[in-house]
Amino acid sequence: MSEQTTVPVKLGDRSYDILIGSGLIDRAGQEIAARTGARRVAIVSDENVAALHLQHLTDSLKAGGIESTPILVTPGEKSKGFATLETVTNAILSARLERGDIVIAFGGGVIGDLAGFAASIARRGMGFVQIPTSLLAQVDSSVGGKTGINTAHGKNLVGAFYQPQLVLADTDVLDTLSPREFRAGYAEVAKYGLIDRPDFFAWLEKNWQGIFDGGPERIQAIAVSCQSKADVVARDERETGDRALLNLGHTFGHALETATHYDSARLVHGEGVAIGMVLAHQFSVKMNLASDDDAKRVEAHLRHVGLPVSIGDIPGELPPADKLMDYIAQDKKVARGALTFILTRGIGQSFIARDVPPSAVLSFLQEKHPK
Amino acid sequence: MSEQTTVPVKLGDRSYDILIGSGLIDRAGQEIAARTGARRVAIVSDENVAALHLQHLTDSLKAGGIESTPILVTPGEKSKGFATLETVTNAILSARLERGDIVIAFGGGVIGDLAGFAASIARRGMGFVQIPTSLLAQVDSSVGGKTGINTAHGKNLVGAFYQPQLVLADTDVLDTLSPREFRAGYAEVAKYGLIDRPDFFAWLEKNWQGIFDGGPERIQAIAVSCQSKADVVARDERETGDRALLNLGHTFGHALETATHYDSARLVHGEGVAIGMVLAHQFSVKMNLASDDDAKRVEAHLRHVGLPVSIGDIPGELPPADKLMDYIAQDKKVARGALTFILTRGIGQSFIARDVPPSAVLSFLQEKHPK
Ligand SMILES: NC(=O)c1ccc[n+]([C@@H]2O[C@H](COP(=O)([O-])OP(=O)(O)OC[C@H]3O[C@@H](n4cnc5c(N)ncnc54)[C@H](O)[C@@H]3O)[C@@H](O)[C@H]2O)c1
Ligand SMILES: NC(=O)c1ccc[n+]([C@@H]2O[C@H](COP(=O)([O-])OP(=O)(O)OC[C@H]3O[C@@H](n4cnc5c(N)ncnc54)[C@H](O)[C@@H]3O)[C@@H](O)[C@H]2O)c1
Ligand SMILES: [Zn+2]
Ligand SMILES: [Zn+2]
Repeated sequence: MSEQTTVPVKLGDRSYDILIGSGLIDRAGQEIAARTGARRVAIVSDENVAALHLQHLTDSLKAGGIESTPILVTPGEKSKGFATLETVTNAILSARLERGDIVIAFGGGVIGDLAGFAASIARRGMGFVQIPTSLLAQVDSSVGGKTGINTAHGKNLVGAFYQPQLVLADTDVLDTLSPREFRAGYAEVAKYGLIDRPDFFAWLEKNWQGIFDGGPERIQAIAVSCQSKADVVARDERETGDRALLNLGHTFGHALETATHYDSARLVHGEGVAIGMVLAHQFSVKMNLASDDDAKRVEAHLRHVGLPVSIGDIPGELPPADKLMDYIAQDKKVARGALTFILTRGIGQSFIARDVPPSAVLSFLQEKHPK
Repeated sequence: MSEQTTVPVKLGDRSYDILIGSGLIDRAGQEIAARTGARRVAIVSDENVAALHLQHLTDSLKAGGIESTPILVTPGEKSKGFATLETVTNAILSARLERGDIVIAFGGGVIGDLAGFAASIARRGMGFVQIPTSLLAQVDSSVGGKTGINTAHGKNLVGAFYQPQLVLADTDVLDTLSPREFRAGYAEVAKYGLIDRPDFFAWLEKNWQGIFDGGPERIQAIAVSCQSKADVVARDERETGDRALLNLGHTFGHALETATHYDSARLVHGEGVAIGMVLAHQFSVKMNLASDDDAKRVEAHLRHVGLPVSIGDIPGELPPADKLMDYIAQDKKVARGALTFILTRGIGQSFIARDVPPSAVLSFLQEKHPK
């Protein structure tokens, strides 16, 4: 199988292509050489991904006439911090790359965010290519140019808007991803349907198994997801308006991630988003915006693919509802004083709701998480 | 005295004004409030500047209805590193500023580069205002949007291009600057004359004393300098061409700074630039590009104001010429293989010379620094 499709991201002089398909790593060297002219790159990756796929990428680059220096970090969210940023940035400088040379992010969203940020600050901006290896990274984090790290004050609070010159999403590498990580990424795929593509959501309800199994549906689902995100980003690169729609499910989701101390044994990001999207629909029903049928349909589909769909699905103790409410208020998406939420009028009809009464959110959370 | 002048920096939607004049700190609150709408700021400063001028600025901001949080760092180049960047960025986040709120850099070039970089990465970009307090910062580092820090690999190798929304250069604060730092900044003022403004250089030869004494010439010299830099930056914001002219004297200067281990007791940046500019003119004479009279005129004027003008003027031991040559080759302005220098055909006639033979530079250095 060697289907391939291209999604262009239109951002003026920062425009670039996302190539999506089977066997793309084999062609990485040739594509990067042809499209960027680079002859030297640094490959930032994590130890999991490197053990499985680094040799393959290095060989492909070599075949394209590109010399590469690997820079490996420990897998996991903890690598998205100042300490690893400094290490990676220094390693890029040690590799004696010049401004036109390229930093490749080869891994999941952690690597994309970290390596992209390092690429943006090393020599005030190196060339940058994303080769995302998790489903979440292929459909979400590698598209749109947000890069960054976490601090004690919260997730992704430090970073840069920095667009890659090319994204290569090889759908075969997803075969080595754990089923749980695959499902977590799938939550973000479903999100695009729920934001503004009701037909895509209906298609997913029918075709999700092919996506998980690596059928041609996988490439198609990733392409629609990238196109959806690219459309939003082209309208609002720096998140001053519409781009906030991409946070559907994320306000609740982030509060749950905070409540579980980002312990991935209990909850990974996409799982928090799955629960958050169900909550966003249920809360919209409570606000008389959406029908209960739609909320049930969302819950049923996400549960069907194996995702958690309620606060009770999270293993272990959770703080009480008023504490979750505090986390929501602290979330960076909350503008001073007022609560901004992504709510919905039904499947594929999400919108940005400003001035949501905090008291309504609290009483909803108390209902959903009584204790 | 309350003369004031405005230099606009024209960079499309990133355009901003530089206000230059006496008594500007008194009006900082009102100018910032009117031009940015901000009601909350963080003031990044160093302990020297804060002890002398912070209360004055805080009062002015308060009078303009702006609440401020001070963030103080240790004076000196060592604060331009990852460790202090992390501290300052976290302090900005702690101050609970939002994206539209403002980080003020209140200090010399170290503070401007550090605070500007922190402002660019905190929440992927906060509002940013420069209130430069050293002559070097007023005529050079606060203009043009280069921000950054140093690493073990070299100076300014990590950073961002990030333009401020406003620059307020209060020429009165320069009265507390040490005479040595003032002179060092003056080297960069003279640089603009030497690059492409021969009349300005001639004016400086006549009027330099008024600049040092705080006469009306000071405002005029700073305004011409800012205008010169703004012109170059408007043509080439990201240093892909012309902007390199601003490095006149800096290739030699940086090598001397490296050779003295950035020990400011021996050599500060502007002093390195002064010696470097004299060397650049003398080397241009040796290359049969410029007349010996012009090189002598440059040397005479810089010596007259009290700046060092030869390698021998630097106190203490220096490595031999071939070692200096190594530092030059490592300098980031050197593109792979070829040596790029700013040379000159005479006062105000500098140009970018590519492919300067390294052997010619070495034998010139051996002449100037026999040992
Ligand atoms: N920049 C953005 O716009 C954006 C958007 C969404 C999420 N994110 C960020 O993305 C991160 C989450 O991304 P993620 O879920 O990919 O996490 P991740 O990078 O930690 O990857 C998850 C796990 O899968 C492993 N892995 C990745 N690819 C693999 C493969 N092909 N085979 C086997 N194992 C593989 C990794 O080693 C890791 O252990 C978070 O930090 C989040 O903030 C960023
Ligand atoms: N971003 C750029 O485009 C650019 C251009 C040139 C230089 N720089 C950088 O600027 C830095 C040098 O700047 P600098 O010379 O201003 O150094 P600096 O910031 O260290 O200031 C020099 C000294 O003067 C003190 N000082 C500053 N203002 C004072 C005042 N009004 N009264 C009393 N003391 C005062 C400081 O505390 C410090 O001790 C270097 O790091 C250099 O790389 C950047
Ligand atoms: Zn997400
Ligand atoms: Zn300089």
